[in-house]
Order: sequence, then structure tokens, then C-alpha cells
Amino acid sequence: MRYRVKIEVSLKPGHSDPEGETTAKSLKGLRYPVETVKVSKVYEVFLHAKSLKEVQRHADEMCRRLLANPTKDNYRFNIEEVK
Amino acid sequence: MRYRVKIEVSLKPGHSDPEGETTAKSLKGLRYPVETVKVSKVYEVFLHAKSLKEVQRHADEMCRRLLANPTKDNYRFNIEEVK
Repeated sequence: MRYRVKIEVSLKPGHSDPEGETTAKSLKGLRYPVETVKVSKVYEVFLHAKSLKEVQRHADEMCRRLLANPTKDNYRFNIEEVK
Repeated sequence: MRYRVKIEVSLKPGHSDPEGETTAKSLKGLRYPVETVKVSKVYEVFLHAKSLKEVQRHADEMCRRLLANPTKDNYRFNIEEVK
């Protein structure tokens, strides 16, 4: 079966987000009433697996081993079966 | 009122996504049954506005003027009122 896993990796609270800060500064410079901006990344992964349980295991491992930095990142994902 | 706008900026189909390609290659190297990976960015913007309509106008403008590149990016957003 083919699955689409949408993984969102974001900074844990309290960790500095220079890209978000710069973006907020630029938006304020353009006169938008912006307070703060937080930037996160989304990985849309298409993969093959035998079952939903297998995909969940893969997704969790991929986050821990490659996509997220356990010291500073949180991650969450949702899985969808696709054709 | 205070709002949270979650903006997702992703590449239009057909545009090259080197970060996604590299990520897919790394995940395949770790023996995951991955086919393709697409990377996009999420901006979580907190701002003040008088009405939902005003936030929608701001969000759309911020995407067109700063956050998305009209040549290669698609964007979409959802708005939530927060305290």
C-alpha cells in the first residue's frame, strides 16, 4: 500500500527562531500589525508499507533519526493512504 | 482581537525541490521504503486586527509581498482567533 505521511517539525518552546524573528521584523517593516512569527517545516513523505502500523513505526523513526533534532525540535505527523 | 494565521508555503508542481530530493535520498539510504519527499514551510503568524476580514486581507498580502514567491510557490492559510 502507498501512504502519504505529512510530518511537521517545529522548534520546542524557548528555543531561538532567528528565521521567525527576521520574518516578523520584515512584516512589521511593511506595516502589518504582527506580534511574533514561528517558522516550522513540513515534510510530505510518500512511501510504501504493508500496514498503517508499519508506516507509524517508520514515520516515528525517520523523525528521530533524521528529520527532527531531539534537543530542540518537536514533531508530529498524520498518515493518509493514497493511490 | 488577536489572531493566529498558519500559512503553508509549498512549491508549485513541476518546480525542483532539492531539499526534498536530498531528504528522500537520505531516508532511502537508511532503508526506509520512501518514494518521494516534498518540503514546505509553515509560518505561524500572531497578529492583531479588527476583524476576520482584515486578517484575511493582511494574510493574503503578506504571502504575495513577502512569504511566497509567486513564480514558484503556492500558499494557503487558516486563521484562528486566539487570546
